[in-house]
Parts: sequence; structure tokens; C-alpha cells
Amino acid sequence: MKNQSFYSSKLVTTDFETTIENLKSALAKEGFGIVSEINMQEKLKTGAGKEINKYMILGACNPHGAYQAVQIEEHIGVMLPCNFIVRESDNGQVEVSAINPEQTIASIGKPEMKPLAYEIGAGMKKAMNNI
Amino acid sequence: MKNQSFYSSKLVTTDFETTIENLKSALAKEGFGIVSEINMQEKLKTGAGKEINKYMILGACNPHGAYQAVQIEEHIGVMLPCNFIVRESDNGQVEVSAINPEQTIASIGKPEMKPLAYEIGAGMKKAMNNI
Repeated sequence: MKNQSFYSSKLVTTDFETTIENLKSALAKEGFGIVSEINMQEKLKTGAGKEINKYMILGACNPHGAYQAVQIEEHIGVMLPCNFIVRESDNGQVEVSAINPEQTIASIGKPEMKPLAYEIGAGMKKAMNNI
Repeated sequence: MKNQSFYSSKLVTTDFETTIENLKSALAKEGFGIVSEINMQEKLKTGAGKEINKYMILGACNPHGAYQAVQIEEHIGVMLPCNFIVRESDNGQVEVSAINPEQTIASIGKPEMKPLAYEIGAGMKKAMNNI
């Protein structure tokens, strides 16, 4: 897995649609439900007349983690859910990426949020490892 | 409008449901569509058995801005859409908050992203001023 400042990513050998299903199953095993699905390829086509490759944003939410996060900082919802993207590159390669909550949610200036962000991030990375 | 590090917020005098409609209209005037709606109160109740006040996350997307953002950094989708939250406090006060893209999207280490994040943030704040 490649770990960048704000995201982690992984190339997979499964096709785009299968990857989305695999990711959903892997996330469910870690306690995350998918609470939003945004087809960016479609949105940019209809909204701006622009063509991009297949690009789906999946919002993952661990309800227990989210509840704790809201108790620590009631405005944290502006950074939720924790997004994954599944996208296809020009050569047909499928990549899965995820926000690093250790870099976003953990950095809002509330010390209590840090261990929670790391715990949520660990669950997200475990799911990515399992696809 | 209150401006914190990662979000801006504003108290309104309209009720919860009316505020959501007003926010959607104000965002539409600035070129933003709503691409996700997450009822956190319901998700935390069904997913974790926890009670919170009314709490809705609305994902706003300006397709032209999002297209530019994806051209600059193809992984930026992990930070999209730009979230608003509408929530009710214990005393029934309704508050609207928005992520500050100047603090999130602008900070990914690509200089070209900064002016775009500021432009998107300005549109979001204009919509908030109009509710």
C-alpha cells in the first residue's frame, strides 16, 4: 500500500465493479457501512460536460466511531464520512484510495480525537489490505 | 459567520428542514449541486443505537471546480464533496457549518490547488451568507 500525506492507495487486479463490491465487503467486516456513493464520472459529465475515467467516491462510516467523534467535536461531520475512491486509470488499471484520517480528523486540534482517528484509520487500512 | 480552523458556521433562525431547503437553493445559485445526503441522526441510531440531535451532512459539489481539482490531483476525491452540516442543538437552535476547503483541499502540497480551494471556499461562504 502506498501511503501519501492525505491518502493511502493500492492497485488491484480486479475490475472496477468487482473492486467496489470487494471493498464494500471488506469494509463491512471492519464495521464500516457505506453511507454515500458518488459516481464522479457521471456527475462531471452531466454537471460540467467533462469526461474522466471511471471514478467512484464511497463514503464509509463506522457508526460507533462516528458517534465518539461527534461527542468529541460536534462539527466533525464536515469531515465525515471517511472517503474511499475507486478509479480506473487510462491504461485500465484499477486503484483504490482512502483518506488518511490520521492527517485530517486527527489534526483538528482536539487531542482526544487523535487515538480515535488512528483507530478508524487502522480499520480502513485493514479493509484495504483485504481486497 | 464564525470561522474556525477547519469549518465555518452560522446560526440561523429557520427550522431544521427549512434550513436544509434554503441551503440547497443558496448553493445551487453558486453552482453547487448536492451529491450526498447523510442523515447522521438516523445512521447513529440504527448503526450504533445512539441518540444524537438532528444532524444532516450534505455533500456539495461544483462540477467545474471538481473537474479542475481532479486534473490537479487525481486522488482529491478522498476530500470531496465539500461537506455542509445542518444540525440542531439541545436548545433547538439550528446551525449550518461547512468545511473550509482552504484548510483541507488547499493543504495537500500542490500549489495549483490553493487558488481553486479559495475560489470554491468563497462560493460556499457566499451561499452561507445567503441563508
